[in-house]
Order: sequence, then structure tokens, then C-alpha cells
Amino acid sequence: MSSTRDIDALIELMAKLPGLGPRSARRAVLHLIRKRALLLTPLADTMQQVAATARECLNCGNVGTSDICDICESEKRANGELCVVEDVADLWAMERSGVFKGRYHILGGTLSALDAIGPQELRIPRLLDRVQSEGITEVILALNATIDGQTTAHYIADQLDGQVKLTSLAQGVPIGGELDYLDDGTITAAMRARKNI
Amino acid sequence: MSSTRDIDALIELMAKLPGLGPRSARRAVLHLIRKRALLLTPLADTMQQVAATARECLNCGNVGTSDICDICESEKRANGELCVVEDVADLWAMERSGVFKGRYHILGGTLSALDAIGPQELRIPRLLDRVQSEGITEVILALNATIDGQTTAHYIADQLDGQVKLTSLAQGVPIGGELDYLDDGTITAAMRARKNI
Repeated sequence: MSSTRDIDALIELMAKLPGLGPRSARRAVLHLIRKRALLLTPLADTMQQVAATARECLNCGNVGTSDICDICESEKRANGELCVVEDVADLWAMERSGVFKGRYHILGGTLSALDAIGPQELRIPRLLDRVQSEGITEVILALNATIDGQTTAHYIADQLDGQVKLTSLAQGVPIGGELDYLDDGTITAAMRARKNI
Repeated sequence: MSSTRDIDALIELMAKLPGLGPRSARRAVLHLIRKRALLLTPLADTMQQVAATARECLNCGNVGTSDICDICESEKRANGELCVVEDVADLWAMERSGVFKGRYHILGGTLSALDAIGPQELRIPRLLDRVQSEGITEVILALNATIDGQTTAHYIADQLDGQVKLTSLAQGVPIGGELDYLDDGTITAAMRARKNI
């Protein structure tokens, strides 16, 4: 079907997105064609815009449209607190909660012997620089509670030991969580870190 | 965050696709930004292309890039068989199987008293025209095995009664299907339509 080549190409590209397979990509493309003015054209324009302007912040690794991201540039956020996360998605999650008012540092992954990812492959040297140069007083290690995440946290803690206050996120029962559905590790952590009422 | 406005807009638009919510849209957008040259730019270009060229076939309702689609134009497919489906996605599913060599007619939905969709809202008048003008000998009603689909099939069968051979897809056990997981209706249909070995 030569005249539908573009449509087939679009389906193939959409199927490469995480969370979409060939079937859902076809469904999405049909939806896009039906809502051409409302969705397809704006989406194409915005993608072109983002492709032209998106870049990594040279300082913290956040995704934005300038060399230094808004968070790094904002004077309001220079409160001496630095939150270390694995990924831009983690930064977004923290920002949605609105609880943290300092700056971030995105590692871009975790240390992994299997995948040959050492400190140089991550943004760890830059983190050590920043702690010195930005007058950081507290580094919050907000890495995922996975084995790789915790290994990375331990490595960074070793590197920064004695230079700065080091903290990590509390572990325990999530808000709205039901004990019956929690894994043993979480219950153990919550029990050990129990607090007075 | 003014400088990430485009990225936020992209997430918002992506979240409107079927099968994606806010969370998976964020994941998809991060993936797109990371694979800018390989995925984001080609996707934006292809979308623009499709937005500019995609249109409905005036004859059958198929989606393509010309006024008359490839299937309607192909002389090879003028074998007198017309397969009536609800939706473009159904046509695509039939074409993937490769079993049907005739032409299609896409209704664009099913009759529905609740949603006030009558024959005029669907491509039914055009179907009746085509049966006359294209020398159709067999109409295959390949509508979904839902109540609305079957109601629509009955209505069309009434309209075409006596003019043309009318068939519908066989009902029974799907290939690879396990009896234990099939619903009662399917087993009943398969039992009633049982065949000699």
C-alpha cells in the first residue's frame, strides 16, 4: 500500500514509545488522524519545538530549554540543600510533591558492575564539585530503594563523608498503604523506624 | 517553569492519546528527548506529513493519502466481494490476516438508539449504492460480535435482502483458545456450528 506509507511509518515510530506496542500504536494513530486539528497538528508542532530546543542542564542534568535550567538559575532555591536523584523523572516526581525547595543533581543512572557503569559514567564527579563550589550544607540522597540505587547511595556517602550533612528519604508505610499489601521489607523498615505518637 | 513550557505542553498532548495517561506520557516524553535524532525528529516530521496528507477514502471510508484508497483503486480486488466492517482498525486487522481479496466498506460505527446514531449517520446509504453500482455478488458482514454490531448487521441484512448473497464471519473457538477460558456464549456458538471431521 504505497500511498499509506506515511501512516505505516507513523505507526512504526509510535510503537517505539515506551508503553505502546504495535496494537496500541495503531489505535493511537487512528485517534490522531481523527483528531487532526485538535491533536495531530499541535502534537507535531510541539515535538518539532521540543526537538529544536530541549537540552540537558550543564549544571544538574535536568531537561529544559536552556543551558542552565530554571531550578539551577533560581536564586530562591539556593538554600544549601542538594537533592541527588537518579533520573529526570525522579526530579519531576519530587517537584510535583512540592516539598523540596533546594536544588537537584541528576546522576543519570546508578552504578552497575554488570553494565560497566562506574562513577565517571554518571554525574558523580560533578556532584563532588558542586558540593564544594555551591556551599552545600546538606545532600539528600533520594535514590530508588533498589539494590543498585542503594549501592550508589553508599558510594556517594563514602565520597562525601565528613564534608557535608548527608540524609536519605525515610522508608516506611506509603500514605494510603494497606499493611496486607505491603512487602515484608517495607514492613520491617517501618517497624524499625517506628516513632512516638 | 517557563522555559520548560514546550516540554509540559508535549506531555499534556501525549497524555491525550488512547492508552497513555499522565505518567506514561511523561515517560514517553523523556524517552523522546533522550532519543531526539532517532525518534523525536522523525516522529515530528512524519506527524506533520500525515496531518497534511491523510484523508478518508470517498468510496469506502478507509484512511489513506488520496481521495480514493489503494484498495478501492486496485483492479485486482474487484472480485465482487465486499466486506463490511465498523472501523478502519477492523479493515487493518482483516488486511493483516491476508485472507480477503475483495474490497471493503467501513461503516464508521454501529447503529445505536442511545447515542442517536441511525443509518444516515453511518455509511449505510453509500453501501446500498455500492452494492448496485459495483456489481457486488457477496456482502460479508464482518461486524463485531457485540450487541450493537449484530443489530447493525441485521439492519443491513434486511436492507440488502434478496439483492445479493449475504454472509457473516463464523463464530467458534479462536485458534489457540482454551475451552476453560472461553465464555459460555462462544462455546454455545461453537457447539451449534460444529462440523464433521
